Amino acid sequence: MQFTAQQIATLLQGKLEGDPTAIVSNVAKIEEAGAGSLSFIANPKYEEYLYTSKASIIIVNDSLEITRPVTATVLRVKDAYSSFALLMEKYSEIISGGTKTGIEQPSFVAATAKIGKDVYIGAFAYVGDNAVIGDGVKIYPGCYIGNNVVLGDNTKIYSGVRIYDECRLGNRVIVHSGTVVGGDGFGFAPLKDGSYKKIAQIGNVIVEDDVEIGANTTIDRATMGSTIIRQGVKLDNLIQIAHNVEIGEHTVIAAQTGISGSTKIGKYCMIGGQVGMVGHIEVADGTHINAQSGLSKSVSNTNTVLNGSPAFDYKSSLKSQAIFRNLPEMQQRLQKLEDAVQELTALLSTQNLEYKK
Amino acid sequence: MQFTAQQIATLLQGKLEGDPTAIVSNVAKIEEAGAGSLSFIANPKYEEYLYTSKASIIIVNDSLEITRPVTATVLRVKDAYSSFALLMEKYSEIISGGTKTGIEQPSFVAATAKIGKDVYIGAFAYVGDNAVIGDGVKIYPGCYIGNNVVLGDNTKIYSGVRIYDECRLGNRVIVHSGTVVGGDGFGFAPLKDGSYKKIAQIGNVIVEDDVEIGANTTIDRATMGSTIIRQGVKLDNLIQIAHNVEIGEHTVIAAQTGISGSTKIGKYCMIGGQVGMVGHIEVADGTHINAQSGLSKSVSNTNTVLNGSPAFDYKSSLKSQAIFRNLPEMQQRLQKLEDAVQELTALLSTQNLEYKK
Amino acid sequence: MQFTAQQIATLLQGKLEGDPTAIVSNVAKIEEAGAGSLSFIANPKYEEYLYTSKASIIIVNDSLEITRPVTATVLRVKDAYSSFALLMEKYSEIISGGTKTGIEQPSFVAATAKIGKDVYIGAFAYVGDNAVIGDGVKIYPGCYIGNNVVLGDNTKIYSGVRIYDECRLGNRVIVHSGTVVGGDGFGFAPLKDGSYKKIAQIGNVIVEDDVEIGANTTIDRATMGSTIIRQGVKLDNLIQIAHNVEIGEHTVIAAQTGISGSTKIGKYCMIGGQVGMVGHIEVADGTHINAQSGLSKSVSNTNTVLNGSPAFDYKSSLKSQAIFRNLPEMQQRLQKLEDAVQELTALLSTQNLEYKK
Repeated sequence: MQFTAQQIATLLQGKLEGDPTAIVSNVAKIEEAGAGSLSFIANPKYEEYLYTSKASIIIVNDSLEITRPVTATVLRVKDAYSSFALLMEKYSEIISGGTKTGIEQPSFVAATAKIGKDVYIGAFAYVGDNAVIGDGVKIYPGCYIGNNVVLGDNTKIYSGVRIYDECRLGNRVIVHSGTVVGGDGFGFAPLKDGSYKKIAQIGNVIVEDDVEIGANTTIDRATMGSTIIRQGVKLDNLIQIAHNVEIGEHTVIAAQTGISGSTKIGKYCMIGGQVGMVGHIEVADGTHINAQSGLSKSVSNTNTVLNGSPAFDYKSSLKSQAIFRNLPEMQQRLQKLEDAVQELTALLSTQNLEYKK
Repeated sequence: MQFTAQQIATLLQGKLEGDPTAIVSNVAKIEEAGAGSLSFIANPKYEEYLYTSKASIIIVNDSLEITRPVTATVLRVKDAYSSFALLMEKYSEIISGGTKTGIEQPSFVAATAKIGKDVYIGAFAYVGDNAVIGDGVKIYPGCYIGNNVVLGDNTKIYSGVRIYDECRLGNRVIVHSGTVVGGDGFGFAPLKDGSYKKIAQIGNVIVEDDVEIGANTTIDRATMGSTIIRQGVKLDNLIQIAHNVEIGEHTVIAAQTGISGSTKIGKYCMIGGQVGMVGHIEVADGTHINAQSGLSKSVSNTNTVLNGSPAFDYKSSLKSQAIFRNLPEMQQRLQKLEDAVQELTALLSTQNLEYKK
Repeated sequence: MQFTAQQIATLLQGKLEGDPTAIVSNVAKIEEAGAGSLSFIANPKYEEYLYTSKASIIIVNDSLEITRPVTATVLRVKDAYSSFALLMEKYSEIISGGTKTGIEQPSFVAATAKIGKDVYIGAFAYVGDNAVIGDGVKIYPGCYIGNNVVLGDNTKIYSGVRIYDECRLGNRVIVHSGTVVGGDGFGFAPLKDGSYKKIAQIGNVIVEDDVEIGANTTIDRATMGSTIIRQGVKLDNLIQIAHNVEIGEHTVIAAQTGISGSTKIGKYCMIGGQVGMVGHIEVADGTHINAQSGLSKSVSNTNTVLNGSPAFDYKSSLKSQAIFRNLPEMQQRLQKLEDAVQELTALLSTQNLEYKK
């Protein structure tokens, strides 16, 4: 897709300097921009690029002083960063088919399902009995929306997402491809012969408003009750959320992390990638956990920062890790000390030491 | 869905005390139950909840002695836990569409496929050439069942599962959404120029009876022969099973664990989440491996318990981990000792020590 | 499927010794081969199996000297290993439906999509607006190919793969089931109230020629620009590649590894399973990283070998890990030393030591 400087200036209500017919076909960071790129400068430390960049259009703050000749068309706006972000959103909506509506054929929508206004349901999508699909929802091709599932308004379900029966998603939720919501919790009762009997998993998953879930993540339904993802939570790709977990508002979790059953995570936490948590613990609000950590105990103080497997206080953990690297040296020091002490002991034992007055 | 106390009493052949028209619409743990909840008390330590719970119906053991007024309708049965579990199973079957049969349209079933009795094949499911689908099998919408695949009786394949050609699953197997069975093993021959040539992966995957596999797990086909998941094995979500792995009967593996190629795991093992195992090792029956461990060697003694990365004996590993936390303190002690020994040495060197008789 | 010794001999242009009508229906390693198996012996250390194996046909090197009676039909070729590998490839092509062409119905191919020659598009596959599908491409059932996606010649997309809009794959690329290419990068701007605002992700993913990607892997699109997987890269299952990552030519990454945003990995690297890398680092060509390692810093020297979390030099890391196992013993040694030094100090303090001349 191509846009002219004039089109962009009109959209952003900015002031053009240079050629209004300049055309861009892609966007790029100012340090990587080439001919045909649209870019922006918001941070003064990048201002030098204004004079060297090959970008065709550069968005800048109104206040920027230009001191040398510039080849790009310059677009002055009140806040370059916000304007650029707005443009990206618009563009993103176009390239992700965000403007599609209607029901593509063939698709399967149960007669008992309730479908809102301005909904897009892609081909090969399946909407089960009594499902309730809110206004403006987009269900991309090949999704499975089970019986009695509820999707709030303007929620976006990318291709190949699977939502099991009875699960409920709020408004403006985004779920990326391949993610599974509501699969059975991993619950089995051991029998006397060493085999296992499945424990029926009859709860569901509740995902509140404004949650975004990455690709190929799995969120298991509760054994009873609900696995709950609170408002504004952001989950990355390939995350495992076990049955009966609860994740507090605006907590962010990076890729490949796994949360075991019944663990409750507080609000505003930041959990790194590949972290593991045991089940049945509670994690206080504002906890930060470094990537690859393993959390085996509850965290009761808010805003604790943790690291390591098993995880403990971040700064102490860094110290232990630093010493770990030097363990061979530490072992040599210990060996030398043992030799020295042995020598001293031997030396003294040869002395017929006496008390002197 | 709603049920009356009378309906439940009839199903469980129990004895009602209280209002037989009491209605429940959900099930809950006794400590979380509210009005409209069905719950149960099997463990004496929860008996106090009988008098305080707002549950509408509570299932209890026949032998339970009631000493104070109870507002809920009480249902006495021989074994409260088993009765409740039975109810959950029935309920689970209803809510998971477990009673569906027939072939939804549009779906794709090859003319050469053999389909058993009472089978459900959901819309957009694909069943390839010469596939054999047992009696009572449920294939949910959007699954892919490759050529020559065999599914045993009463096996349940949730939406979006992909089973590559030639793989064989037994009876009563459950596979959750997004799981891939039979993708190519990760096998490449390095060439002289540093690039890699794919090694054809012509084996398959065999999954025996009563196995359950979670969501978005991947089980690669063997290079030659079979990757084998033995009877009763339970695999959680997002697990990686590489080519030619064999997992022994009734072994349980938690989420996000990865088993490298050709490793053989024994029977009745319990493997925690996010564990990694190198390839070509053997793990004895009854081995327990703690979450996030890394197993780099075979385990030859049965019932070994392991922890850490690299993994070793569980108890020793906990000790090492405890000392790891205190490494900074240990380093200070070492420093103090060095100072003390240096002082002693200095002191003695100033003495013109002589042997005395 | 069954083949006779004569058919195989003709295909491989080899010389038969024994029954040319011998029939095989499977292939197996020589140590596992049974009646009906085709096997091969390339390595002299397996020659003894020639006389004991129950295989029906055994492929051997032309030069092999047979000293005792053999029951199998023997097929002599110039290079037993290469001939066997060739056979496996042919067989693999047959069993993976590699010879299919045409468009199965129902499928969805946008009117504006360009479809090459000899293409296979499976049932329930979706090909979006302006997608360009090269010659000989195979898109298995239930895939999603977004708008403006480009697939090069002879690329193979297994069932259930999801490729978001604007992504570009080269020639001879293989993508296994459930993999998601081009999902949104995990980018959010923190707001003052502690919530997060999504940053539009308007870049794409570029996958160059001869790349193979395993099952259920996720490769996020760039925020701006491209996430790039260079020529010949091999990615295993369940890998996470974040936005704006670049992976150099012929680098191999094992299962469940995660690469954070904007990290650049060089050529010819080997990355083990369950490795994690932080974002915004650079990894030199030829770097080897052991399984479960965590890389938190750039690697500037080529061919570095790393281990541990956090990762450092492989050999040093093994030494530290060995000492870690012995930390309890080390602690005891430290304790003993402290006792000994205390004793020596006490002893000396009781002496009224004097300088002697």
